[in-house]
Amino acid sequence: MTHPLLDKHRAVLDGALAAIADRGFWSPYPEQPSPKNYGEMANDAGKQAVQALLGKRFELDQPGVTAWTACDRSPYGVALDVQYPVCDVDALVAAGLAAMPAWRKLGVDGRTGVCLEILDRLNKRSFELSYAVMYTTGQGWMMAFQAGGPHAQDRGLEAVAYAWREMNFVPGQARWEKPQGKNPPIMMDKRFEIVGRGVALVIGCSTFPTWNTYPGLFAALATGNAVIVKPHPASTLSAALSVRIAREVLRENGIDPNLVTLAAVDAEATRKLVAHPAVQSIDFTGGSSFGRWLIDNARGKQVYAELSGVNVVVVESTDNYKGMLRNLAFTLSLYSGQMCTTTKAILVPAGGIDTDAGRKSFDEVASDLAGAIDKFLADPATATAILGAIQSPDTLKRIEDAHSVATVVLASKKLAHAEFPAAEVRTPVVLKCDAKDESVYMQERFGPISTVVAAPGDGNAVVVLAERIVREHGALTAGLYSTKQPVIDAMTDATLRAGVALSINLTGNVYVNQSAGFSDFHATGANPAANASYTDSAFVANRFRVVQRRWHV
Amino acid sequence: MTHPLLDKHRAVLDGALAAIADRGFWSPYPEQPSPKNYGEMANDAGKQAVQALLGKRFELDQPGVTAWTACDRSPYGVALDVQYPVCDVDALVAAGLAAMPAWRKLGVDGRTGVCLEILDRLNKRSFELSYAVMYTTGQGWMMAFQAGGPHAQDRGLEAVAYAWREMNFVPGQARWEKPQGKNPPIMMDKRFEIVGRGVALVIGCSTFPTWNTYPGLFAALATGNAVIVKPHPASTLSAALSVRIAREVLRENGIDPNLVTLAAVDAEATRKLVAHPAVQSIDFTGGSSFGRWLIDNARGKQVYAELSGVNVVVVESTDNYKGMLRNLAFTLSLYSGQMCTTTKAILVPAGGIDTDAGRKSFDEVASDLAGAIDKFLADPATATAILGAIQSPDTLKRIEDAHSVATVVLASKKLAHAEFPAAEVRTPVVLKCDAKDESVYMQERFGPISTVVAAPGDGNAVVVLAERIVREHGALTAGLYSTKQPVIDAMTDATLRAGVALSINLTGNVYVNQSAGFSDFHATGANPAANASYTDSAFVANRFRVVQRRWHV
Repeated sequence: MTHPLLDKHRAVLDGALAAIADRGFWSPYPEQPSPKNYGEMANDAGKQAVQALLGKRFELDQPGVTAWTACDRSPYGVALDVQYPVCDVDALVAAGLAAMPAWRKLGVDGRTGVCLEILDRLNKRSFELSYAVMYTTGQGWMMAFQAGGPHAQDRGLEAVAYAWREMNFVPGQARWEKPQGKNPPIMMDKRFEIVGRGVALVIGCSTFPTWNTYPGLFAALATGNAVIVKPHPASTLSAALSVRIAREVLRENGIDPNLVTLAAVDAEATRKLVAHPAVQSIDFTGGSSFGRWLIDNARGKQVYAELSGVNVVVVESTDNYKGMLRNLAFTLSLYSGQMCTTTKAILVPAGGIDTDAGRKSFDEVASDLAGAIDKFLADPATATAILGAIQSPDTLKRIEDAHSVATVVLASKKLAHAEFPAAEVRTPVVLKCDAKDESVYMQERFGPISTVVAAPGDGNAVVVLAERIVREHGALTAGLYSTKQPVIDAMTDATLRAGVALSINLTGNVYVNQSAGFSDFHATGANPAANASYTDSAFVANRFRVVQRRWHV
Repeated sequence: MTHPLLDKHRAVLDGALAAIADRGFWSPYPEQPSPKNYGEMANDAGKQAVQALLGKRFELDQPGVTAWTACDRSPYGVALDVQYPVCDVDALVAAGLAAMPAWRKLGVDGRTGVCLEILDRLNKRSFELSYAVMYTTGQGWMMAFQAGGPHAQDRGLEAVAYAWREMNFVPGQARWEKPQGKNPPIMMDKRFEIVGRGVALVIGCSTFPTWNTYPGLFAALATGNAVIVKPHPASTLSAALSVRIAREVLRENGIDPNLVTLAAVDAEATRKLVAHPAVQSIDFTGGSSFGRWLIDNARGKQVYAELSGVNVVVVESTDNYKGMLRNLAFTLSLYSGQMCTTTKAILVPAGGIDTDAGRKSFDEVASDLAGAIDKFLADPATATAILGAIQSPDTLKRIEDAHSVATVVLASKKLAHAEFPAAEVRTPVVLKCDAKDESVYMQERFGPISTVVAAPGDGNAVVVLAERIVREHGALTAGLYSTKQPVIDAMTDATLRAGVALSINLTGNVYVNQSAGFSDFHATGANPAANASYTDSAFVANRFRVVQRRWHV
């Protein structure tokens, strides 16, 4: 290998390449925030590093600064007031373009090595990132550490590995020798160069500002593109830290840091970036309305969009009723359901289900689920750690409104947070309705709002309804509880047709809303909830082009 | 390997996989139409097979037939009158969708084996296909055989190999085992299935009805999609034959033949197909106006488009003046310049160039090129074999009009064809103009119309002009003649920035307008002439999705 940073991180790359091929469990970034993994001082140092940023300008040394903005919003009520440079978007695009030729010339190995170094640096600063994620998103700290730190880094590394594999297929050179019968062959030498498509725009979301940003950021960067990170205004801090760390690594290695910039800009400037002719790819996570606008307006550009959807679970029968309820209770509670993978519609046959605890009527299933959530959240310390805080006022309003759209099985409660008195903590609301009341459950209602739906007919009929929901409204996750192989087969076929990942009979410590790096494909790209997957070949292959030249030997 | 057809063709697949990796010369389909390669009777049998189709209904046993259309047009004046079924496009889409689940279940190996069998069958019928291509496109027979037969099959095979490689990376199953310290690990079993995106629409062009159709057809088919082939009406015969052969192979192997159908439909029905929600990908070769409409209107769908452009050659200096002129003369003459890769603008410093035959003024270069074309086409038999006939009345009109837009260096002549008295044979027209007369040369003028452009400044200034042409108007090919390394370096950098393949100092038997399967990437996807390349990972990776399921062990 020709670049020292690739040599340094070669074992990590090789591990990632093996993992995306066999898709077993693997990660180079420890998810346990223990002193053994990260050092005795890591937690305190990380917390202090974030405290030291509050109330100050966040210097990034980017071009075209026109103003400063303090846009973060803390659901915990932490006074953040970090001021980010607002840069002219044309200046950011121009600076990115100017940085690209040298980045291209660094070659596949060099670019990959630098990306791996950035990820390594991000990993070492996982505690700092975790507090930045926690304060801005409202995630509980453990989740902020894991999903915002090592799991996000896993997704970034996965993208680098896919990119490396695809780029590595293209040989740098070839000798082409065409036989001419008795005459000497025609001989040509050829060179193949990988060039990025242009400037990549990566638009982040408010709830997972690193996990949903790193795949696009690293996929675009590794394949030779400049990247402009446009975070959600309310969740800028961890994205800004990530950009700063990337710029540090670039500068240390003699690369123009403007290859990666932060665009702390408003919606109008974002639309201008989308329309800029030099912006050739756009990664987006967020609501369907901007997402659809993006797909309709970014014509001729590569768009990788993860939008909203209605994640479904079919409950047809179970041999572990308590385990099922516990598992669902966790899913609905985790981060107050503010995940793109949280179950929204739980479809249960109106006639009830068979379980190891006897026959249960539809109403019993609904109220037992409510009871399981109540029990799971009984201890306030556990509850606040799991629930976190509600990220946006819109979600608070949706929770309030939800109580009047259908029968309430479990009402949402406001909980006090021991450490953050201003935190907006809410327990989930569970509704129930008949399948014909489609307006209740056939929309996302982002946040801790889920509906138990009484579906007519047998298990197969319920599966048909689930398929329709996924086809029409999209879904990132689907689940099934059934003891009957024909129902499992029917749901398997339905999810293959509708294009959604299926979790079957989860009753232990794996949850339908969780997606493991290197093993689970997050989103399929095959239903309206997303047009791409994290992370597969398609997520990287179209971010670069091959330009060749040839001449006679 | 699990499927007998993959076993049968395993050596071909392995050869293709090795070739796309090392990009040396390779092909399993002999390009020489010799009896040794194809049998003593192959030529006569092929010709007779096509003759037997003329004036009759071309039965395909497709659903939804509403009428019959005889749409082919022969530039040689051959009375074709082959009548194709016009099918309701909704019926074609529905039939394609219905055929997809079984095609998916056949798996990667099965689908790949069937595609390889279709290609093998197409190869065995190369003579038949060659006459179908020749009669409808106006290509000379040798070109029709090579480009329409084995070279087209190479491109199809290349797509199958890329598809197989990408799909093969996704394991069918995985065991995920996450350590839990002293507790037993969490263990899950996972299954990963490859599913096609939906129905693929492949829209062909009039001049290369197989070469430009097979990449999209086979890329989409191998990755699990149904394919509707929509040929250019004037060049339907070879596409219809290809579809019939594919359907024969499918039927023989117990697969619903409606997986591959022919849409001999008008523009309105084509737009309806583009808009159909089940149509998820569109391959298109043709003019920029429909292409742009497609990119703008097929929102959220995968579009692989090859459009028009202005291919450039920079002539800065040469150590083989005669070889250069001979090479350019061949390029401009072959198939009367009716190739998407034909050079349109030849940029020469206004002050003249250094050559091995002494200093040549701009006017000398222009007139010597005209002389070289005259000489190359002096023998009428050679001329008609190389030129073929003019495919469309539009091109005839463009040739006529070209004589009045700038100074004519070489006027086009009408030649008689010994075998086909009605053939519209034309020699190339060469214009010259000053670089400031941009309207003369900065548009495609499809057909045998090229312009020698007097460019101000030195070689580097000419390179700057070439880069601008490619960036603004697109190009599939670029060429350079220069003896000076700094100029070669400048043109190399310019083509990397503009994203176009470069041929340097071609003076022998390789031409800038030729692209070799498995070695040359045809188009880059990085400039306005095309948004995709034949054939690379990006051409296949987004045509399928991975749908997974998981459960506790």
